[in-house]
Amino acid sequence: MNINRHYLDLQDSYLFATVAEKIAAYEAQNPDQRVIRLGIGDVTRPLCRAAVEAMEQAVREQGTAAGFHGYGPYQGYDFLQDALRQHYAAFGVTLERDEIFVSDGAKSDVGNILDIFAADNRVLVPDPVYPVYVDTNIMAGRRVFYADATAENGFLPLPDEKTDADIVYLCSPNNPTGAVYDRAGLKAWVDYARARDAVILFDAAYECFVTRPELPHSIYEVEGARECAIEIGSFSKTAGFTGTRCGYTVVPLELKRGGVRLRDLWLRRQSTKFNGVSYVVQRGAAAVLSGEGQRQIRADHAYYMENAAIMADALREMGVWFVGGEQSPYVWFRCPEGDSWAFFDRLLTRAQVAGTPGAGFGRNGEGYFRLTAFGTHEDTQEAMRRFIKAL
Amino acid sequence: MNINRHYLDLQDSYLFATVAEKIAAYEAQNPDQRVIRLGIGDVTRPLCRAAVEAMEQAVREQGTAAGFHGYGPYQGYDFLQDALRQHYAAFGVTLERDEIFVSDGAKSDVGNILDIFAADNRVLVPDPVYPVYVDTNIMAGRRVFYADATAENGFLPLPDEKTDADIVYLCSPNNPTGAVYDRAGLKAWVDYARARDAVILFDAAYECFVTRPELPHSIYEVEGARECAIEIGSFSKTAGFTGTRCGYTVVPLELKRGGVRLRDLWLRRQSTKFNGVSYVVQRGAAAVLSGEGQRQIRADHAYYMENAAIMADALREMGVWFVGGEQSPYVWFRCPEGDSWAFFDRLLTRAQVAGTPGAGFGRNGEGYFRLTAFGTHEDTQEAMRRFIKAL
Repeated sequence: MNINRHYLDLQDSYLFATVAEKIAAYEAQNPDQRVIRLGIGDVTRPLCRAAVEAMEQAVREQGTAAGFHGYGPYQGYDFLQDALRQHYAAFGVTLERDEIFVSDGAKSDVGNILDIFAADNRVLVPDPVYPVYVDTNIMAGRRVFYADATAENGFLPLPDEKTDADIVYLCSPNNPTGAVYDRAGLKAWVDYARARDAVILFDAAYECFVTRPELPHSIYEVEGARECAIEIGSFSKTAGFTGTRCGYTVVPLELKRGGVRLRDLWLRRQSTKFNGVSYVVQRGAAAVLSGEGQRQIRADHAYYMENAAIMADALREMGVWFVGGEQSPYVWFRCPEGDSWAFFDRLLTRAQVAGTPGAGFGRNGEGYFRLTAFGTHEDTQEAMRRFIKAL
Repeated sequence: MNINRHYLDLQDSYLFATVAEKIAAYEAQNPDQRVIRLGIGDVTRPLCRAAVEAMEQAVREQGTAAGFHGYGPYQGYDFLQDALRQHYAAFGVTLERDEIFVSDGAKSDVGNILDIFAADNRVLVPDPVYPVYVDTNIMAGRRVFYADATAENGFLPLPDEKTDADIVYLCSPNNPTGAVYDRAGLKAWVDYARARDAVILFDAAYECFVTRPELPHSIYEVEGARECAIEIGSFSKTAGFTGTRCGYTVVPLELKRGGVRLRDLWLRRQSTKFNGVSYVVQRGAAAVLSGEGQRQIRADHAYYMENAAIMADALREMGVWFVGGEQSPYVWFRCPEGDSWAFFDRLLTRAQVAGTPGAGFGRNGEGYFRLTAFGTHEDTQEAMRRFIKAL
């Protein structure tokens, strides 16, 4: 039996695992110090009341013969697909049920969607980047190329005449940088993809943090995107579903390559290697999208964005260059001293604050650092006080 | 952009989709007839009380800041891993936490585990077979070979000197036939795999229906299996989790190929393309494995096995040859007349009973038919009355 040797091409250790090990080692040596974690993008606010009530009700149904739900539809229940259609309608985007695939999370979809593409495609990812985009392609033996995201282009690269890609990853608002494309930026990529028969994988996991009307929530707000883009969304950051697990992928009916609808390939993939999302979880996700649910989670978004403002204010006070911090729960700043792993160590040991070193996200991340707004006000304020004091 | 053209090698339609279409067409033309569905293996008994209570409690925790659970461990929570270890200990099998990977269901794992294997492996599946084993390999461009399961070998093929495989699928109790390997049968496959450096993918989704002490629940009850076998389990049939979604995969630490631990590859796959199972669902699954939960679900197993006995008795009365019907929720019988799709149509139109034609599971399934024990007593009794009357 031969293993998939492409796995051996992966870098040894996953970024967040290394960060976790370093924090654990520091805590073991300094048991009296409290480390504030503003590194990994996990949320802290509990599920909203509407979701809790809907899930409790769904659990009770599952305990009765009359209310019991067995295998669900492969693409998700109508009630959740329709709630998502309404969600998109608010951005002026019309979707069909057949185009919406409910899943156990955006990370699964980001990895699994690659099943439907040949191994010989040229893959373009921004650098810095969410490591999963790169690793999932390396696992399949695909060649990965990088689009430079730098301070010069505001960490929002655009295609030019040298850009040569079949599959393009975009994430806006961006993880890790917090930078957000406007419609013109996305239009440049859509035009590129259509001219080249490329496909855009658009990661919309952070769309709920967009509030400025000139910034798009969905790539489908841009003309022509239905012919070239797959969009992946998530309830993780939107509604605190990191431990509850629900996401969705949109594959428009118009999106065809080699005469084949990608939506049909993805349905075949999902109906063969997946069996739907828990009924209880789907009820919770639909409740999040209800009027009551939206009001409740918007209060959480405001809470997190206040944290982002606290971090942005502190960085401004220190005269540190950054992007993000508004329209996004991430703040991406230039390390005031040293390379990004050295700065990580310094911030951890001098201020007991853990962030994420930019180098972990790619070559262009060197010299930068990511903080997340998903902590509590108290921790965020305390972390920035310590940061200012220590540096 | 090039699609994965191996998808075009898949047969056009998924077995159960075709069955569902035929039933829908019949019902549309005969709105006054009630079709009894003993085809697809979905369960009808609700979740047990222990699971419902644990899930309600977990949902409430998710609604509080103090009890909130965000991203969980990639391999599942300790409380569920430990409950599974105890479950296996009852069969005399000792597992480490590091070997247990909790997932959203056995179907996902059966498909996704193939990621860690090279495309050039020779894959052996029994015929007849659960279609997912074949389709997931075709999607990756692997060559699939068949081990003949026939009335002559009791639908339990064994390796012989001509068997040439790198990856071997075994499912016991079997879907679709209901046949169950004894320890000697599994030992023959384990010895084969060890001698050849092959890997066995052992599907244990139906182990809870085994009650005879001489029959194994797990392949790890057989000496040497830890060096060659991956086992995939499920709460779907065990505890009615078809719509709640939880399963698990065991990859023993001893299982290495090419000097690499398969457990490490699988962890890399899961930590890159998966983000764990809902906390609420994991609490429910652990409750199923508690003493109280086990007592409750055993009553459901007994209920289903009474259905199996009803079907077996009716077939005996008609003098129809079959396997399964005990130690398994499936009954696999020789069609009393015609090929298996013709028999499907006849049973549907004459008796308003829907089963699954054996031909849908492979060449050797032709002339056979599968019924499942997951309906109600009333429906099962009525279906067999109609069957006897009609044929």
